[in-house]
Amino acid sequence: MSLTGTRVVDFTRIISGPFCTQLLADLGADVIKIETAAGDPLREQGKKVEGLSWYYAGYNRNKRSIAIDLRHPDGHEILADMIASSDVVVENFRPGVMAAMGFSDERLRKLNPRLVVCHISGFGSSGPYSHRPAFDFIAQALSGFMSVNGNADDLPLRSGLPVSDLVAGLYGALGVTAALAGLREDRAFRSLDISLTDGLVSLLSYMAADTLATGEPPQRSGNDHPLVAPYGLFRTADKPIAIAPSNDAIYARLLNAIGRDDLATDPRFDTNEKRMADREAIRLEIEPVLMTASAEEWIERLNEGGVPAGPVLTIPEMFDDPQIRHREMVLPVPHGPHGTVRMLGFPIKSTPGSCEMRRPAPALGQHGDEVLGELGYDRDRIDTLRAKGALR
Amino acid sequence: MSLTGTRVVDFTRIISGPFCTQLLADLGADVIKIETAAGDPLREQGKKVEGLSWYYAGYNRNKRSIAIDLRHPDGHEILADMIASSDVVVENFRPGVMAAMGFSDERLRKLNPRLVVCHISGFGSSGPYSHRPAFDFIAQALSGFMSVNGNADDLPLRSGLPVSDLVAGLYGALGVTAALAGLREDRAFRSLDISLTDGLVSLLSYMAADTLATGEPPQRSGNDHPLVAPYGLFRTADKPIAIAPSNDAIYARLLNAIGRDDLATDPRFDTNEKRMADREAIRLEIEPVLMTASAEEWIERLNEGGVPAGPVLTIPEMFDDPQIRHREMVLPVPHGPHGTVRMLGFPIKSTPGSCEMRRPAPALGQHGDEVLGELGYDRDRIDTLRAKGALR
Repeated sequence: MSLTGTRVVDFTRIISGPFCTQLLADLGADVIKIETAAGDPLREQGKKVEGLSWYYAGYNRNKRSIAIDLRHPDGHEILADMIASSDVVVENFRPGVMAAMGFSDERLRKLNPRLVVCHISGFGSSGPYSHRPAFDFIAQALSGFMSVNGNADDLPLRSGLPVSDLVAGLYGALGVTAALAGLREDRAFRSLDISLTDGLVSLLSYMAADTLATGEPPQRSGNDHPLVAPYGLFRTADKPIAIAPSNDAIYARLLNAIGRDDLATDPRFDTNEKRMADREAIRLEIEPVLMTASAEEWIERLNEGGVPAGPVLTIPEMFDDPQIRHREMVLPVPHGPHGTVRMLGFPIKSTPGSCEMRRPAPALGQHGDEVLGELGYDRDRIDTLRAKGALR
Repeated sequence: MSLTGTRVVDFTRIISGPFCTQLLADLGADVIKIETAAGDPLREQGKKVEGLSWYYAGYNRNKRSIAIDLRHPDGHEILADMIASSDVVVENFRPGVMAAMGFSDERLRKLNPRLVVCHISGFGSSGPYSHRPAFDFIAQALSGFMSVNGNADDLPLRSGLPVSDLVAGLYGALGVTAALAGLREDRAFRSLDISLTDGLVSLLSYMAADTLATGEPPQRSGNDHPLVAPYGLFRTADKPIAIAPSNDAIYARLLNAIGRDDLATDPRFDTNEKRMADREAIRLEIEPVLMTASAEEWIERLNEGGVPAGPVLTIPEMFDDPQIRHREMVLPVPHGPHGTVRMLGFPIKSTPGSCEMRRPAPALGQHGDEVLGELGYDRDRIDTLRAKGALR
């Protein structure tokens, strides 16, 4: 796989950092998860089955775990040895915590002049808010994301997913991978500084472009497209479906597919501007036709007619959908005493394969002996470290 | 920069593909945008200033453009030459279109046995929906994203941003970069297959894990956290602020910061479960205190007290925020006759730099002569191609 042979020392916990290192691990990197005796708090979050949090299991697949007392001088020495022999360090503490632990960028560079370090934090490691406590919701609010999510008459709305955490994890993985790609042979120390807020801001797309061009804030428009009508959720005989005719040509196909070609020349609806001006009027023409057949029938007919249309699925429905099943977006993973855990699949599909399941998420400290053995620590030394409490 | 020396032949248009190649270009790759005489439709979308769409300008910075008649045999030959001498091809046509143009994966492999190809589509290049027309909104609906976005009493809600397009672009860039990283010296052909739907599914996080563990669909919870209370938007003397006390320790800090330590032992609120059961009751204790001072004052005080809190900004407010300005999330880019265009900055910050602005978005076909010259085409040949209509 792409990152086989790359070793990552992983100080991350909860979501954004572990998602970043999960992506690196899925791509083949050897990710060594550094935990304390308490373990990643995620081990205790989410629904457990047979004593295992499936939330933890998903974000920590393909990783190994070593549990170290980070305040013990011998624990510190183990980390220094690991960092010296690795390619990447990833951490998502609040800015300054790594330095307070004795691992400033300066120290890291001394330990390993070829290291790629990736810091992930709420606001970044510099600037007036860098030392504020952060959380996904705060980044969503600050970034402008919430201002364009939701219905016009309601308050700004967060995403149901911790989207800023996840996007920051993706940018972290991209930054690390790009640094590894570019400098495979002649690598110099590089320190990346990824923020939850910057990541979401970077996705503001035409909302940002139009705002910068005009100075005007975009409005929330719920399920309506801000620039196109008709568009959105429409009722059928059983349940609503999503229809997205994004331009005049596809609008014409929609009219054809529902047997309402007459509307094409109706002076009330013959331009997108007119349809935008009275979204309800065009809906009142279209929806009664859609209500004569089921969602499934209309999705079939509209897609055949070249109109993007699809169901609005709950998460369990999505997991049962034939396309999602075909794409193997759920993986069953044998997890020893915890049974078979089902978790999200790999979104990077490739031929030959880029990602694979090599090992389930580790128990706390499961690979301590193995990892230290690879560093050249002998049995006696490992036993002594454990007796001293530096290693769990 | 990381991808300096990597050449990308870029067949993409609109958002998901161009965002992918923008990330590669920002990281240093030489991205050659293949356009037809009509140009990327994005050139005509979004707000224009001095004749230039700022939406187009943002997504196409750092790229070069060549305009080719894709149906002309000589146009086809130019593309084959470019592909043979490049590292990466990225495209976001509907599955099958590249093959119909004469560039199936098989042909691409023959042209360049070391190529990394990245296909981006709505549902992926295989499976029962692979040939359906796709659009961001349909992927949001199918993926389950909409089922957890929005208020409990409303319909499922799309994200205000085209989030599935953008996440697919990020995965495409990560997959390409990982392929380049792993196989720098001994590279074999690799074909990536990225879907808007798979990308969003992969972000379902604890929503997916809990669903797989229990079979129960998660509920929409608007701005409330599904597992924690209090949490959300709270009114102050002037405007609402976001507060995210994600665990009991931070809840205690919140009570301290607002001078309501008494609530810590109030039997109505002494566990998260009790607070979740009646979110309004705890809000009625907290909000009256918050309404005695401004949003700015409370954000300052809460952050000092270790409670994640922040403003809910519109996009123009966000661009004026001191943290966002410090992080240079808006870049002014001189754009020749179109004046200075302001666009989103780079979310991957690094020392030394990973991303930089090297050139503004290209005019249609601006680099045709230059690119063909680099391929070894002489002046006569280029003039002939242009006279024949193969090159614009």
